[in-house]
Amino acid sequence: LHQQARKVGLIGAPFAKGQQPRSGVERGPDLIRAAGLLHRLQELGEEIHDYGNLTFEDIAEDEPVGGVKHVRAVGRANQTLSEAVRAVKMDGRVSVMLGGDHSLAIGSIHGHAAAVGQLAVVWVDAHADINTPLTTPTGNIHGQAMSYLLHELCSKIPTLPNFSWIKPCVSAKDLVYIGLRDLDAAEHYILKLLGVKVFSMTEVDRLGIARVMEETSEYLCARAKKPIHLSYDIDAIDPSVTPATGTPAAGGLTYREGVYITEHLCQTGLLSGVDLVEVNPFRGQTEHAIQSTVSTAVDLLLGCFGRRREGNHPADFILPEP
Amino acid sequence: LHQQARKVGLIGAPFAKGQQPRSGVERGPDLIRAAGLLHRLQELGEEIHDYGNLTFEDIAEDEPVGGVKHVRAVGRANQTLSEAVRAVKMDGRVSVMLGGDHSLAIGSIHGHAAAVGQLAVVWVDAHADINTPLTTPTGNIHGQAMSYLLHELCSKIPTLPNFSWIKPCVSAKDLVYIGLRDLDAAEHYILKLLGVKVFSMTEVDRLGIARVMEETSEYLCARAKKPIHLSYDIDAIDPSVTPATGTPAAGGLTYREGVYITEHLCQTGLLSGVDLVEVNPFRGQTEHAIQSTVSTAVDLLLGCFGRRREGNHPADFILPEP
Amino acid sequence: LHQQARKVGLIGAPFAKGQQPRSGVERGPDLIRAAGLLHRLQELGEEIHDYGNLTFEDIAEDEPVGGVKHVRAVGRANQTLSEAVRAVKMDGRVSVMLGGDHSLAIGSIHGHAAAVGQLAVVWVDAHADINTPLTTPTGNIHGQAMSYLLHELCSKIPTLPNFSWIKPCVSAKDLVYIGLRDLDAAEHYILKLLGVKVFSMTEVDRLGIARVMEETSEYLCARAKKPIHLSYDIDAIDPSVTPATGTPAAGGLTYREGVYITEHLCQTGLLSGVDLVEVNPFRGQTEHAIQSTVSTAVDLLLGCFGRRREGNHPADFILPEP
Ligand SMILES: [Mn+2]
Ligand SMILES: [Mn+2]
Ligand SMILES: [Mn+2]
Ligand SMILES: [Mn+2]
Ligand SMILES: [Mn+2]
Ligand SMILES: [Mn+2]
Repeated sequence: LHQQARKVGLIGAPFAKGQQPRSGVERGPDLIRAAGLLHRLQELGEEIHDYGNLTFEDIAEDEPVGGVKHVRAVGRANQTLSEAVRAVKMDGRVSVMLGGDHSLAIGSIHGHAAAVGQLAVVWVDAHADINTPLTTPTGNIHGQAMSYLLHELCSKIPTLPNFSWIKPCVSAKDLVYIGLRDLDAAEHYILKLLGVKVFSMTEVDRLGIARVMEETSEYLCARAKKPIHLSYDIDAIDPSVTPATGTPAAGGLTYREGVYITEHLCQTGLLSGVDLVEVNPFRGQTEHAIQSTVSTAVDLLLGCFGRRREGNHPADFILPEP
Repeated sequence: LHQQARKVGLIGAPFAKGQQPRSGVERGPDLIRAAGLLHRLQELGEEIHDYGNLTFEDIAEDEPVGGVKHVRAVGRANQTLSEAVRAVKMDGRVSVMLGGDHSLAIGSIHGHAAAVGQLAVVWVDAHADINTPLTTPTGNIHGQAMSYLLHELCSKIPTLPNFSWIKPCVSAKDLVYIGLRDLDAAEHYILKLLGVKVFSMTEVDRLGIARVMEETSEYLCARAKKPIHLSYDIDAIDPSVTPATGTPAAGGLTYREGVYITEHLCQTGLLSGVDLVEVNPFRGQTEHAIQSTVSTAVDLLLGCFGRRREGNHPADFILPEP
Repeated sequence: LHQQARKVGLIGAPFAKGQQPRSGVERGPDLIRAAGLLHRLQELGEEIHDYGNLTFEDIAEDEPVGGVKHVRAVGRANQTLSEAVRAVKMDGRVSVMLGGDHSLAIGSIHGHAAAVGQLAVVWVDAHADINTPLTTPTGNIHGQAMSYLLHELCSKIPTLPNFSWIKPCVSAKDLVYIGLRDLDAAEHYILKLLGVKVFSMTEVDRLGIARVMEETSEYLCARAKKPIHLSYDIDAIDPSVTPATGTPAAGGLTYREGVYITEHLCQTGLLSGVDLVEVNPFRGQTEHAIQSTVSTAVDLLLGCFGRRREGNHPADFILPEP
C-alpha cells in the first residue's frame, strides 16, 4: 500500500449560491492555492495540473422554488462542474475540486461517476447535507446535495429547473458519513430509512478514529473495490481549528483525526476524486482564524496525496558521507 | 435502551457562598436558561416544568467555624434546596438543579435520596470536593460537599451550625468520580481509604471515555440498578472550552468526552437527578469565553435528556414526497 | 511501581546558539524556575538540588562550517554541559536539564552516558533532530543533535571544530521517538535505514497514547533495563497549548498525552535524566501564551517526578477527627 506518483487535476469552483450568495466561500479556491498547495503536492512527487477556476453563468431570474434558493444557478453551476470533473477523470487524473460551498458535491460526484461508473462516497462533515427540497429548513442547497445523488431518494425529489441533467449515481450502501453532529430530523430519518453507514462524533468517540477508518474501508470494500470519492467539508473539523466556515458546529474532529482520515484513504490506493469545500474567509474573526482554516485545508489535501507525518523521502535518496 | 419522553423539573439555585460570595456563580441558572435550555429540551420531546429560582435567606452573622466559611448560609440554603429537589422527585420528574456553586450538591443529593432512597452518584469534576471541615485548605464548602453525604465519613465530620438536618445518604461503593486532576492530599487519602471508584484524567487517557463509561455503568449496576444522580461541575471540562468557572484546571475533558458521558448515562435509563454547577460569567475573560461555557453547559444537559449527535427524529415523522 | 523519594539535580542551560542566537530560548531555565518548579517538586517529597545556570564561553570567531552555524559555540557549550550532567549523576541524582535549545541534548545525553554507561533515550518532539551536518537544510544544530550521538551514524559525521570530545554513546535500538510530524527527507531516510522505533503522530492517533507508552517501555526493556534519558522538546505538544517555542508544528500531542508520557516513564522507575527544552518566551504572542507554555513545561517535569493526576498523599498522612 505504498504511495505511487499520481496524476492530479485541480479544479477551482468559486461558487457560493448553495448557501448565501457572495458570502465569502467563493474565495476558497484562491486562498487554498495561495497557501502553497500546488508546490507542496509537487514536493510529494505528484504530477499536478491546475485547470484553473471555473466561471459560472449569471442567472438573472432565480426566484426560490418551493422555498429552495438559487435553484437555477446551482443547477447550472453543477452541470458545468460535472463536465469539468468528468474531463479531468478522462485525462486519467485524480480530481480535486476546491469549493465553494458543498452544493458543488452534486456536480463533482456526478462528473466523477460519469467517467468511472459506480463510486464509493466518503462524506466528512458536521452535517449530512441530505435534506430533500421538500424537507430543507433553510432552502440552501448545500444542505441537500446528497439527496439528489442517491438512487434510493429518487422518488422524493421534485422536478427543479436546471436539475434535469442530474442522474442519481450513488447507492446508499456505497456511502459512509464521518463526523456528523448537527442533523435535522428529516435527515436522521432518511439515514435510518436507507440504512446509511454513519460514524457520527459519538462513534468517533466510542471507536477512535483508527477503528472508524478501518471499518470504513472494510465496509466499502466488502463487495467490490470501487473508486472512492472523498467529499470533505471543512466544518467537519472542530471550529477551534477551522473557524472560517459558514456553519460551524461544536465538538468536531481534531486536526489530527481530520488528517488521519486522509492518510488512511490515501493508503487504500482507491482515492479517485476529492472535494474540499466551505472554507470561508469572511467567517474568520482574525487573520489567524483564516490562516488556521486554510492551512488545515491544505494539510488535508496533502494527506490525500501521500504526505505522511512520519516523513517522506524520495526512492532515490542518498545519504551524503564526509 | 431507547429514549422515552420524560418529565423534567428544573430548579435554579443562584447561590455562591460555598465559594466566594457574589462571585458571579449565582448568575449560572439565568444564563443557562437564556441560552435556550427549556426550548431545546422541549424540541427533544421532553415535558419540562421550570420551578424557577430558589431564594435563599440572608444570614446576618455567619463567621467562619473552624476555618470553614459561610457555614450557616450554606447549611440553610442546602436545606431549602433539599426540600425543593425532594418535591420535584415526588412529582415524578427528573430533577435538574442549575447552580450556583458545588456546595449545592449537598442539598440536591440529599433531597433526591430523601425521595427515592439509595442512589448511585456520578460526580464529574476536576476536583473531588471531599475535604472534611477539618482538612479543607480553603474553608470553601464547595470543596467539601461529598464529605457530608457519605456514610463512611460520618465520624470525621464535626457538628456545624445549620448542618444538623443533613443525614449521610450515599455509600462509598455507590460513588464514581470522573475527570479528577487536582486533589488535595487529604482528598486522595480519603478516596484510597474508602476505596472509591475513580476515573482520573489518567484513567480517561488510558482507557478512553467509552470504556470509562462502560466500566462506570457496570460498576454501578453490578449490585442493583439504583437511580443515578449526576453531579456535573463544569470545571471537569477543559478550560479551553469552559473557561468561565472559578477553579479551572488544565488538562480537562474535551467537549466531546463531556457530552459522551451524558449520552451514555442517558441511555442507561437510570438518570434521576442532575446538577450542573460552577458556571461563572465573571470568570470569563471575553464574551466568547462566557458563551462557550454556557453553551457547553446546555449541550451537557441536552445529552442527559436524549439529544444524540447522530440526530433525532420524532417517532411519527413522515418523509414528504413530491 | 510506586513512587520513592528521589534525589534530583537541576541544571539551567540558558543557551540559544543551536538555533538563532539570543532568540529568547535562553530565558527558559529562569522562567521555568519562576513558575515554582523547585517548590512543587519538594511538595512531592523530592530532595532537589539546584546547581544553577551554566555560563557559556563567548566565542569570538564562529563562522559557519559547511553551512552549519555556531559550531564552535555549540561544541564548547555542550562540553561544559556534559561535564555538569556527569557530575550530577555522580552525585546520585536524576539530572534535569532546562534548556535552552535542543542542541543541548548532545551534552546532556553524553554526560549522562559518561556517568552511567548505556542509556535508553526517549525523544519526545515534533522533529527528529537527526539531520547530519551534511543534510541539514537550515544549518541549525538543534535539528542535528541525535546524529552526533548515535553509534550507527558515526561514519556520516564530518570533523567539526570543538566537537572532537563527543563520543557516540547511543545505539539506534535504544532510541524511541514520540510525537514526530515534521521531518526532512534525510531524517526520514535515516530513521528507516537504522530501523529506529518511531511513534509519529499517526501512530499516536492509531494506537492511543497509553498503548504507545506500553510499547515504548516494552521495546526499551526487552533486552535490558537501561537507565532512561527523556529528552522532551516542548514543541512536541500542540501549539494551541505551548505556542511559545521556535518551531511550532500543527497537530501535536495534547497536554494530557504530554503528561501521560511523563507519568508512565516515572512509573518505570528507570528515569535517570531529563531534558526540557525549547521554551521561548519571545515566540509567545501574549502573556497567556507564554504562561501556558511554561506551566505545561512545569507539569511535564512534575509528571516525571511522581505527580499523579489522581492525587498524591504522604505515607504518614493522618485523617483528623472531631
Ligand atoms: Mn457542514
Ligand atoms: Mn457540507
Ligand atoms: Mn466541584
Ligand atoms: Mn471542580
Ligand atoms: Mn522540535
Ligand atoms: Mn527538538
